[in-house]
Amino acid sequence: MAQPDTSTASTRDRLVASAAELLLRNGYSATGLKAITAAGRAPVGSLYHHFPGGKEELAAEAIRVAGAGYQLLVDAVLEDAPDLATGIERSFPAAAAALEASGYADACPIATVALEVANTNEVLRRATAEVFEGWTDALARRLTAAGLASDEARTLAYAYLAALEGGFVLSRATRSTEPLLAAGRVTAEHVAAALASADGP
Amino acid sequence: MAQPDTSTASTRDRLVASAAELLLRNGYSATGLKAITAAGRAPVGSLYHHFPGGKEELAAEAIRVAGAGYQLLVDAVLEDAPDLATGIERSFPAAAAALEASGYADACPIATVALEVANTNEVLRRATAEVFEGWTDALARRLTAAGLASDEARTLAYAYLAALEGGFVLSRATRSTEPLLAAGRVTAEHVAAALASADGP
Repeated sequence: MAQPDTSTASTRDRLVASAAELLLRNGYSATGLKAITAAGRAPVGSLYHHFPGGKEELAAEAIRVAGAGYQLLVDAVLEDAPDLATGIERSFPAAAAALEASGYADACPIATVALEVANTNEVLRRATAEVFEGWTDALARRLTAAGLASDEARTLAYAYLAALEGGFVLSRATRSTEPLLAAGRVTAEHVAAALASADGP
Repeated sequence: MAQPDTSTASTRDRLVASAAELLLRNGYSATGLKAITAAGRAPVGSLYHHFPGGKEELAAEAIRVAGAGYQLLVDAVLEDAPDLATGIERSFPAAAAALEASGYADACPIATVALEVANTNEVLRRATAEVFEGWTDALARRLTAAGLASDEARTLAYAYLAALEGGFVLSRATRSTEPLLAAGRVTAEHVAAALASADGP
């Protein structure tokens, strides 16, 4: 693929950013191409120039970019903490604070689309699956490095992500941080106990 | 409200059932009124006769009816078990089996719509919040009856629901029951330990 020049790269970046913002917050079907190009300050034609596959291709890219961005956020919380158990414990109040500050809009950037497309769009389903699998692998590697056996690390990584995703579903619907914080307390306690009884890194 | 006669009640019921099936599986924006009336074998006009508020009013009713139906399913699993800890443990493999059997379509009946409408439709957001709060209260009552203090019961009820909802998000996206079963194992273990150390009912 030819390297785009700077000006087209920035149009492309703006399209991906506005798609991430709109598609991932309001869903795939609810978001029109005009809204994406308007928010990205880009002509409609530029969308097909950068994404010949149209809305689907742009959405798949937005899912990947948003997934990578969220990974960096979680990494920052985990690496700022003195140890992994503390980082995991802190990540739930951090997510709850961000959720509340955004008016209950900014949760997992891809869950809304993930549920919407799970049985309707195989291209986008695969994009969401890749993001979730990437997050799971990254956390499982951290848990293994902290002394857990690989199968236990994978189980706890899934449990952690499920608590976060499920907490977001319940907290966004009820407009309360309570479900997310409750799920976080239970998960963090469980992970801390597992790490404490592990052999250590 | 006047009691509808049997024939109109059955048209109304078919509309709610087809709305529950389509809206709740594919999302609110992705589902047109024509698809709902076609699936419900009802003329489009009958929709506005039974639901003057149109798609939004029908969707709110579908959310409530689907929520009540799912509560009955969970109740059946919990009441079939010799004790609450066992029931909670069994509910995850039961949900995973149903999910897999449906081609990863039948998970929580309202989560897809809940995320989609959380910041776009206040009427439907409230309907999803009422269902989640009803489920939480019902499980918290069971946990309290089994000997837990009410604040711990509420925390565990949220953690249980979050594990189920988050497990569904991850399992639908990855087309694997592994995330749901992993989240279930961690949650069930935690609940069992809490119940074992409680005073008992």
